[in-house]
Amino acid sequence: MLSIRLEAQVNLIFYYSPNSIALAAHIVLDEIGADYTAVKVDFGQNEQQSGHFKAINPKGRVPALATECGILTETPAILTYLAQIFPESTLVPANNPFLFAKIQEFNAYLCATVHVAHAHKNRGRRWVDDEVALAAIRKKVPESMEATCRLIEDGLLQGPWVMGEHYTICDPYLFAVARWLEADGVDATLRLPRIAEHRARMLARPATARLMAECYV
Amino acid sequence: MLSIRLEAQVNLIFYYSPNSIALAAHIVLDEIGADYTAVKVDFGQNEQQSGHFKAINPKGRVPALATECGILTETPAILTYLAQIFPESTLVPANNPFLFAKIQEFNAYLCATVHVAHAHKNRGRRWVDDEVALAAIRKKVPESMEATCRLIEDGLLQGPWVMGEHYTICDPYLFAVARWLEADGVDATLRLPRIAEHRARMLARPATARLMAECYV
Repeated sequence: MLSIRLEAQVNLIFYYSPNSIALAAHIVLDEIGADYTAVKVDFGQNEQQSGHFKAINPKGRVPALATECGILTETPAILTYLAQIFPESTLVPANNPFLFAKIQEFNAYLCATVHVAHAHKNRGRRWVDDEVALAAIRKKVPESMEATCRLIEDGLLQGPWVMGEHYTICDPYLFAVARWLEADGVDATLRLPRIAEHRARMLARPATARLMAECYV
Repeated sequence: MLSIRLEAQVNLIFYYSPNSIALAAHIVLDEIGADYTAVKVDFGQNEQQSGHFKAINPKGRVPALATECGILTETPAILTYLAQIFPESTLVPANNPFLFAKIQEFNAYLCATVHVAHAHKNRGRRWVDDEVALAAIRKKVPESMEATCRLIEDGLLQGPWVMGEHYTICDPYLFAVARWLEADGVDATLRLPRIAEHRARMLARPATARLMAECYV
């Protein structure tokens, strides 16, 4: 375990873009004190579809994390990896399979349901070609974002952190999704006050504040 | 660890429906020899939206796994939980954070990308209300299913199993998604032969064959 960790510490390269979900893993990298290099992928120049980047991540998406062992993609996987190679961070429990699974469950919901609702605003072409249909899809985003976040607001978010008193990898992930709410047509303070409070709690953490000011502006 | 496992063994209740992704975790439950009760949720009667079932899973979806510790949802979480409480199954590695993360990465891709492409056939109302737009969305499913599976066909599926020589929780999950291909308009044998071979390899396993004949007909 130690050798893997030492290798990972000096050789992590993290690929991100400012408005993306990469923020979640970026916060964790910062908070655990990992020795990493952050590389911005310029979506404005469509760099994520370049041959250079697709050699790193054939999916043409961020985040991607290059480690000594190989490249990792998908936020739930990167978050779990970072938590496990820095066990002293206690971002996932060491010997509690049920709690570990509850963390994976929450992150899978963000990944496959809430993030997917959001993606229908600007990434609708993944699922439809017709322009009129694209507009119809975009129109429902405020409703589907609020509906999918409602489950978090009303139950999954235990408070003060997602899993209760203990801060885990779920928290930066929720923050990275919840910061999209206003742009997606949902007034979080009004409609999802507990999520808005969680967001403020995350912003009070130095790593989040710094990244929001320097990399995710 | 042992006490958690013993409790889980005698008290697992698994909620599934025949055409659903529940098949993935169902195969694992069977193969690890878990002592579980399977409960069919009748989607034809919209039972997944009943008060009774929503008390079990507020998302109104399957799979859901009731354990002594509480209820788990989301296929990647349930698969990981089962693999961890039955460590002798070696369905996830015990001390290899990178390989463990690669397994989570593959499962996150199935969950958030391939399954989502499939869901646009019959679950389009999650993202759009307009009938014409629904039809336009449905029309693209063969293309998006093939495109999202192409990455698996051309690289992620190492062969003979997803992670190479070693069978993991990725395999039943891939099977449960890949069995939808023909109904989604993709001739797997013709277009995605390596995935079709993997599917045949899975079907040769007794648990898969039995469940397909008895529960997922």
